[in-house]
Amino acid sequence: MGTTLVEKIFSSRCGREVRAGEVVMAPVDRAMVHDITGPLAVRVFKEMGGEKVFDPARIVMLFDHQVPADSVPAAENQQFMRVFAREQEIHNYDLREGVCHQVLMEKGHAAPGEIVVGSDSHTCTYGAAGAFATGIGSTDMGFVLKFGALYFRVPESIRVEVTGAFAPRVGAKDLILSIAGDIGAGGATYQALEFCGETIKTMPMAGRMTCCNMAIEMGAKAGIVPPDAVTRDYLQARRPGAEIADLAPDLDAVYADRRTYDVTDLVPQVAVPHNVDHVVDVDEVAGTSIDQVFIGSCTNGRYEDFAEAAEVLGDRTFSDEVRVIVVPASKEEYLKTLRAGLVERFVEAGALVEAPCCGPCMGGAFGLLAPGEVSLSTSNRNFRGRQGSTEAEVYLCSPATAAASAITGAITDPREV
Amino acid sequence: MGTTLVEKIFSSRCGREVRAGEVVMAPVDRAMVHDITGPLAVRVFKEMGGEKVFDPARIVMLFDHQVPADSVPAAENQQFMRVFAREQEIHNYDLREGVCHQVLMEKGHAAPGEIVVGSDSHTCTYGAAGAFATGIGSTDMGFVLKFGALYFRVPESIRVEVTGAFAPRVGAKDLILSIAGDIGAGGATYQALEFCGETIKTMPMAGRMTCCNMAIEMGAKAGIVPPDAVTRDYLQARRPGAEIADLAPDLDAVYADRRTYDVTDLVPQVAVPHNVDHVVDVDEVAGTSIDQVFIGSCTNGRYEDFAEAAEVLGDRTFSDEVRVIVVPASKEEYLKTLRAGLVERFVEAGALVEAPCCGPCMGGAFGLLAPGEVSLSTSNRNFRGRQGSTEAEVYLCSPATAAASAITGAITDPREV
Repeated sequence: MGTTLVEKIFSSRCGREVRAGEVVMAPVDRAMVHDITGPLAVRVFKEMGGEKVFDPARIVMLFDHQVPADSVPAAENQQFMRVFAREQEIHNYDLREGVCHQVLMEKGHAAPGEIVVGSDSHTCTYGAAGAFATGIGSTDMGFVLKFGALYFRVPESIRVEVTGAFAPRVGAKDLILSIAGDIGAGGATYQALEFCGETIKTMPMAGRMTCCNMAIEMGAKAGIVPPDAVTRDYLQARRPGAEIADLAPDLDAVYADRRTYDVTDLVPQVAVPHNVDHVVDVDEVAGTSIDQVFIGSCTNGRYEDFAEAAEVLGDRTFSDEVRVIVVPASKEEYLKTLRAGLVERFVEAGALVEAPCCGPCMGGAFGLLAPGEVSLSTSNRNFRGRQGSTEAEVYLCSPATAAASAITGAITDPREV
Repeated sequence: MGTTLVEKIFSSRCGREVRAGEVVMAPVDRAMVHDITGPLAVRVFKEMGGEKVFDPARIVMLFDHQVPADSVPAAENQQFMRVFAREQEIHNYDLREGVCHQVLMEKGHAAPGEIVVGSDSHTCTYGAAGAFATGIGSTDMGFVLKFGALYFRVPESIRVEVTGAFAPRVGAKDLILSIAGDIGAGGATYQALEFCGETIKTMPMAGRMTCCNMAIEMGAKAGIVPPDAVTRDYLQARRPGAEIADLAPDLDAVYADRRTYDVTDLVPQVAVPHNVDHVVDVDEVAGTSIDQVFIGSCTNGRYEDFAEAAEVLGDRTFSDEVRVIVVPASKEEYLKTLRAGLVERFVEAGALVEAPCCGPCMGGAFGLLAPGEVSLSTSNRNFRGRQGSTEAEVYLCSPATAAASAITGAITDPREV
């Protein structure tokens, strides 16, 4: 019997054929720490007697959750991490580049066949580059910083085959929300989602990142897209001269499950409070009054997302009743968006465009909600209290739906504005 | 004996000739409340039995200190204020326009001869429009909301005559810092600074606002510039059709003091920690290593400030060792700066450009400092703990000095980069 993409990666990196279910100590090609979870990881590393990290070149540090520092403790955490980076000669993007997952992708820190870990749950995003990428706790990260390896149970995979072409104003976010609704929040626990099929093949990296990013919302250890010409094009500019592994699952690979989705008739999807897998067609919640719209995050903070939002916006303005917060996921995406005239358009229309960071996604630094308020967000989680008050509500949607709703002041089908 | 500008304003608004030292109940032409001090003012208004405010058209509300809400209590405060604005039919710019003082100026809410109060200490900025404008406490503001008037002791004035032309890379901020150093933090307590002379006459509104803004740093109740053609040009577009009072101090007006400053040989000035009036020539502190640079605030967050910073920057990049935070003071200033290509230039060079708000100025929402860190800031206060840790240090300077220092990573004379 053949092997899945994830089994191939672990086999290759462990130097022997391994199968789903085996527990292996696997080397880590790249480890990412950020301002929230990094300090704890570093403390664990030190408590383990760590003096030098396993390989500074394989560790990436950046700050994105509380930047520029939103409290003195946050400033102290960042100060602590800066000192560690300097001592250990670790590359620190500091607060200059944006959201960790976007930055690791665009700086070429994840490539086909690699094992990448990050102390952030949405590390699974880099599956879009054909890597096995997963979020780990700060304690595990302390171990990785010291040893450059980690125990993994090799995950089983669910093959997710997607066919059909998206209708206008429907895209990757609607797809992954509908998959989350179907599989459920715990439906892929500790498994890998292997995204394939004609729809994925023709999907640009931005959409693939959106899909892989939300694998964790089904409990998955990873999401992964078989690397192809799209992956290669994306990476060649970003890791010049690097060899990019050829990697495909065997036709007779063993999967825990196979699911197929046809997007032809897919309509805009919305995850309603307070669960990511509580997903409905937009018309079921259309008209729900909203107080805040957030377009951004590692899920939907790329140029393509802003272009889609801007197309819906046209030359209109956002509702005076809605705070519209736009946060590009990285400096690169910010500049692309700015140079296309979209930052100007959003600001003219009434939005606040903030510097690249996680923004209101996790309800920490800014964009918090008061009791009774309703947020519509292109991010990835709508748990109770996620964006502020536990008595607030967060709906998740695509950039197109977010823009349409920001214009009207209520949840709106983007095909109808 | 003749009267000062401030005496003329109080005489006109009280309907009888009043002199410095008299206590009068004067009508208020405009009252401004924001997200920090507004909720307390509203509560006082309610405790006084207030049902309807004296005149909704004379009250302006906006949020600028903690936007988008940086905590659930901040979100609740804003929610509380929004409800009050709706009930009372007060115009609420909400978080859409920027820093209160910039917005009130550019929306034409202050004009020659008017009395304007705001529950923020830098309300004195509107003296640039020829108004008597002063910051008041939230309790006084509660009274104003109900009665539209307030007791004032008519301030004595200090005539500040400024002559000479600025050398390149020296400007209004250097002037007002040097005046603060000369007069001292308490040197103008409860007085008004009447700025006049050829240098002020040829100064654009941006610089006049910078000067008036910092009057409070000398303890002054107000700063004021005699309205002239520059004032008229600025206001005519912003309050169309409105009559703009002719207003000038009498030649034989009685002043508490007269001071003259010649800017011909003025060099870039820096206020060193932890006092605004501890002002030195830049060369005395040149080479001081810095961690963060903030270009923005109601003092220096206008297009002219960013243009000056960008001119110093040229096609260089900011130091990797410095966090550079750029925050336009309003949406209007943001769009001007963006359309001139400066937002792009700053971001390319490594800065974070945030949406209009108070930013790191008062160490609340973002840009806080860890112990031992050093900030160089174009804002107006460098008190211990002002931008985060009480063990951090804040230096104040002009946008030119800020930009030059952000390039080198240490305090730098902008004439030398």
